Amino acid sequence: RTLKIGLIPGDGIGKEVIPAGRRILEALPASLGLKFEFIDLKAGWETFEQTGNALPDETVSILKSECDGALFGAVSSPTKAVKGYSSPIVALRKKLDLYANVRPVKSVRGPGVKPIDMVIVRENTEDLYVKEEKTYDTPEGKVAEAIKRISQRASSRIATIAGEIALRRQKIREGGSPSIHKGPLVTVTHKSNVLSQTDGLFRSTAREALAAGRFTSVAVEEQIVDSMVYKLFRQPEAYDVIVAPNLYGDILSDGAAALVGSLGLVPSANVGEGFAIGEPCHGSAPDIQGQGIANPIATLRSAALMLEFLNEEEAAAKIYAAVDANLEEGKLLSPDLGGKAKTEEVVQDILRRL
Amino acid sequence: RTLKIGLIPGDGIGKEVIPAGRRILEALPASLGLKFEFIDLKAGWETFEQTGNALPDETVSILKSECDGALFGAVSSPTKAVKGYSSPIVALRKKLDLYANVRPVKSVRGPGVKPIDMVIVRENTEDLYVKEEKTYDTPEGKVAEAIKRISQRASSRIATIAGEIALRRQKIREGGSPSIHKGPLVTVTHKSNVLSQTDGLFRSTAREALAAGRFTSVAVEEQIVDSMVYKLFRQPEAYDVIVAPNLYGDILSDGAAALVGSLGLVPSANVGEGFAIGEPCHGSAPDIQGQGIANPIATLRSAALMLEFLNEEEAAAKIYAAVDANLEEGKLLSPDLGGKAKTEEVVQDILRRL
Ligand SMILES: CC(C)[C@H](C(=O)O)[C@@H](O)C(=O)O
Ligand SMILES: CC(C)[C@H](C(=O)O)[C@@H](O)C(=O)O
Repeated sequence: RTLKIGLIPGDGIGKEVIPAGRRILEALPASLGLKFEFIDLKAGWETFEQTGNALPDETVSILKSECDGALFGAVSSPTKAVKGYSSPIVALRKKLDLYANVRPVKSVRGPGVKPIDMVIVRENTEDLYVKEEKTYDTPEGKVAEAIKRISQRASSRIATIAGEIALRRQKIREGGSPSIHKGPLVTVTHKSNVLSQTDGLFRSTAREALAAGRFTSVAVEEQIVDSMVYKLFRQPEAYDVIVAPNLYGDILSDGAAALVGSLGLVPSANVGEGFAIGEPCHGSAPDIQGQGIANPIATLRSAALMLEFLNEEEAAAKIYAAVDANLEEGKLLSPDLGGKAKTEEVVQDILRRL
Repeated sequence: RTLKIGLIPGDGIGKEVIPAGRRILEALPASLGLKFEFIDLKAGWETFEQTGNALPDETVSILKSECDGALFGAVSSPTKAVKGYSSPIVALRKKLDLYANVRPVKSVRGPGVKPIDMVIVRENTEDLYVKEEKTYDTPEGKVAEAIKRISQRASSRIATIAGEIALRRQKIREGGSPSIHKGPLVTVTHKSNVLSQTDGLFRSTAREALAAGRFTSVAVEEQIVDSMVYKLFRQPEAYDVIVAPNLYGDILSDGAAALVGSLGLVPSANVGEGFAIGEPCHGSAPDIQGQGIANPIATLRSAALMLEFLNEEEAAAKIYAAVDANLEEGKLLSPDLGGKAKTEEVVQDILRRL
């Protein structure tokens, strides 16, 4: 099978880590019978500066018509609102209907390390990210409003994929993979004590979707978002799959990343029907750009996660194992993890273990 | 001076901790020249069940016309949306125009403890808490929308009080109180990379307010909310005063509470012009209600915080010191802190130290 993969490095360290993602895919053992073709695509702040469009139509149309998946690096945001500019990754998620943003957060086994093994499943197309805003003047000054939109349709499908991910994780556990979880659990996060209609709809729809017959083995519980953040830090080991509307998912996944030591470790996949874009959770990191010290692991894991959602689980497992081996040995770590290794050294160490 | 204080225990452990708040106020040394009168007031889920109104008009009017301040316990939320019910504390904040929710989070000095000493200043009257929601049907199912409203007026005054709190903290430090901070710092939190108008307005207004002459000594920086949560956990010692719109402030303060070990330690004050309501950050905790083991410290500190905003800083300092002494000794701690002491034992230990 040949997979066509779009490569969208974007800005900043995106340009340093996306090539690593390409290399690990190319280095997968031939025995897997997987081939890759790569297409370089543009998006981001630099693209905006050059072309006036942060997400060229060509990028979207090639992804749609030619690609099976993609890797997206990171984009820099302008420090002030700039007319005509808006975040290309947010637009891409909507244009390709990549309705689920899946963010696994896992700690490395080791003495004294709290075991954490959770996936945050973030709705990816609506909520405040519809970006419908307006501003008006009043006698007391300006007032701005934004719409938070929650639909039954999007809530139902995000809860369903969360349930499926919980079942899949359980299957892997039953296959003998060591785990801290006894059974599949989905935690539905919302703020329906304040937002009874919007978050109330998310909550009741998620509950309903997860009550479907095929999820009988999945335990379902709820957490109000503020208390979820609290619990995340007090007892992270208790969580398996957390499902949340877009903005809470955004916040929770950065919080969970902090628990495992660095955003540089945390991958994500933007998942739609038969299409997935791997995307490291970190940003463009202008402070370290150009130094060759960015942690490539979030991108390598994102490449694996993309493969999982393209049904190439065996290939994905190989990448995860190589990354875990690097981290468990702990000798070649990038500076965000307290090490001194350059991006290139980390990549080589992981490729060697593949 | 005699202060009239409304007591609103609410539900669950609210009833167990608010009496402790009353007792510490009564136990303040006579030398301070402070007297208190207390008025018992109703609000909460039980009140709703009894009267059909979670926040009786009488409670609001007595607070407005007779009280200098109040202590609010906690309220239970119904597990499903109930017609006519809505959170009384959210309503109270709006009805009394208590525009700032101030939440100091401080770790206890001790070996191996990360020093944390920050205040989260949360806007308290708008954002998604305006609770303007609607639901409609579409061919693809229900859709619900909520308004997030951000005004220049509210953003300006919350940033201003944040700046003032930063200056006040600096003054206390210069008075010789040991501190981990070198100078006053306000961190403005928002998500203007997605919400350019609403959060963009919050950001630019806060920046402008903090550029005022009297804040020249205050350093100002910004954090996007997801990255703020990340940083909160990676380097909490770096933050002094964090100012945020309502919902982010809600989430950040629970997150910060997790850092110091328990929500049972974290106080808050809902502050308006010349009026303040102290409120522990924890909820009604139905799981431990009636057992007499709730941690009273959040309420005792909330009483102190209320006094601070009623310009009784000396009295407040006495309460803080008594609580700190109890925690530093660490012998009589409630179960949330790993101890075995009952609420009553903790209260007595702290009163003894006053
Ligand atoms: C860059 C930003 C628009 C984006 C988001 O909020 O979704 C980022 O924080 C992420 O989590 O992918
Ligand atoms: C109970 C709830 C409505 C409230 C809020 O969200 O403000 C609580 O979480 C708080 O922080 O005081």
